[in-house]
Amino acid sequence: MAVKNVVALAGGVGGAKLAHGLARCLPPGHLTVIVNVGDDFTHYGLHISPDLDTVMYTLAEIANPQTGWGLVDESWQMLGMLEKYGETPWFRLGDRDIATHILRTHLLTQGETLTAIVRKMSQALQIDHTILPATNDHFATMVDTAEHGTLVFQHYFVRHRWQPTVTRIWYDGNATITDEAAYVLEKADAIVICPSNPILSIDPILSVGDMRDRLRLRRVPCVAVSPLIHGKAVKGPADKIMRELGVDASNTGIARYYDRLIDALVVDKGDAPQQGAYLETNILMLTPADRERLAREILQFLEGMT
Amino acid sequence: MAVKNVVALAGGVGGAKLAHGLARCLPPGHLTVIVNVGDDFTHYGLHISPDLDTVMYTLAEIANPQTGWGLVDESWQMLGMLEKYGETPWFRLGDRDIATHILRTHLLTQGETLTAIVRKMSQALQIDHTILPATNDHFATMVDTAEHGTLVFQHYFVRHRWQPTVTRIWYDGNATITDEAAYVLEKADAIVICPSNPILSIDPILSVGDMRDRLRLRRVPCVAVSPLIHGKAVKGPADKIMRELGVDASNTGIARYYDRLIDALVVDKGDAPQQGAYLETNILMLTPADRERLAREILQFLEGMT
Repeated sequence: MAVKNVVALAGGVGGAKLAHGLARCLPPGHLTVIVNVGDDFTHYGLHISPDLDTVMYTLAEIANPQTGWGLVDESWQMLGMLEKYGETPWFRLGDRDIATHILRTHLLTQGETLTAIVRKMSQALQIDHTILPATNDHFATMVDTAEHGTLVFQHYFVRHRWQPTVTRIWYDGNATITDEAAYVLEKADAIVICPSNPILSIDPILSVGDMRDRLRLRRVPCVAVSPLIHGKAVKGPADKIMRELGVDASNTGIARYYDRLIDALVVDKGDAPQQGAYLETNILMLTPADRERLAREILQFLEGMT
Repeated sequence: MAVKNVVALAGGVGGAKLAHGLARCLPPGHLTVIVNVGDDFTHYGLHISPDLDTVMYTLAEIANPQTGWGLVDESWQMLGMLEKYGETPWFRLGDRDIATHILRTHLLTQGETLTAIVRKMSQALQIDHTILPATNDHFATMVDTAEHGTLVFQHYFVRHRWQPTVTRIWYDGNATITDEAAYVLEKADAIVICPSNPILSIDPILSVGDMRDRLRLRRVPCVAVSPLIHGKAVKGPADKIMRELGVDASNTGIARYYDRLIDALVVDKGDAPQQGAYLETNILMLTPADRERLAREILQFLEGMT
């Protein structure tokens, strides 16, 4: 059976890459990316949604190809002036990027939902698929660390460069999934969990309202793409944090972590998990062509499962 | 008698130029510029203080020398991205300038006063004189127009490029002068009203609390520098708005407008008012040297009056 409507769950850079591949393989309007907002935070009074922006910029093909986050052709004049005022901003706010934060903060203050704001921005950037925040509610990923106590996510991740030892992750706030997310999950022919950090990026999506139960009770196939290659994260602290929280930092550990949520794990060649179904292929996405090739293989794999 | 401590009242570009000349003539710490905040407004959630910024950038010698407002070496990436989102921002927000607005808005939200924020910023920009907002309170200049009804000042001035016919000016809010402004006025040896628009820039300073009475009851000399040369504003709508509000658009009209507030009017050569004392000199400030020369002449004139 053909897979027409796909829902992808994604965090930042790695997730955005696969979402981009899926966006290029599917006809307009057939992909919905539900994005982690646990990383959202307020910096200098601006509401910043790092993962939403990374996915939006990537799908609009205006992301910085070097970093994977932020915008291409970015400049840093605002930040330089802030430093002139004696500030030591630890979060990189580019001049173009800041327009996103100013507009989002302004529209939130006017009472618009994050969902409506992302829709407005995505349309303006001519993205012909849908990007949804996991929730419109406050739902912040909090990181208990051995060295610095409890940190708001971006303080752990950017300010302290994910070096502290994580002892526990929890969420501040009560969140429900949006009507839009519930609707697309209902309509989906298949679900893809992108190669984002399972603990830091996917868990905060699954922990919104009854999202995890909706995935468990799904009637359509769901695959996850591993963020690890031979036990190492392609980018970021996935393996480090898995070890710190007692999760086996391997595809077997990932398969167990996603137990009952997925029908198969997509892994790199020669890196099969010891339990569960899997698809072995080249999962490293270095170029846009890699993203599209991996997305196409996953869609074919899903079609074989329906 | 030597004039040691000077208080200047100023609006935007013209006022900032003379304030800069005074700043270069007086020893560090001996000039206080009390600046109009009637033009302040909120744009995309940012608290913008156009006149304070113009004075601050000018005294820090980082103002754009072409426009007189905004920053030198400015770029407009943020604005371009905002337009990409379908916005039509009518107020020019430069990338460096936006740091000022973000930091000010952030600190106001944290409960700091505008006075404290301007002090912090001025010090960071190594300005060795004092810039004070006329008030820390909300006190917005409102412009009733024949064509568009009531407009918030910047909508009249920037959005509609001061083209509408003004029928009345009034102020939204109740404001008191700050302790800092009261203190410097008490300590001043002389007061200078800069060549700013008397109606749009100086009146909103004089209308804060008992400021006008404090000037009337002063025990030190006060001079105003005319913003007109032969009945024409050097920049902006001073003569246009004077005519619209039935004020004689000439130095005689200015002298009458400032009646009892000043001891003399500083006017351009051959442009003496028909009433009151005056100093005739070249008041056009095209270069930084012009500013300093005019400031020095005014200070000498004031010394002769004490």
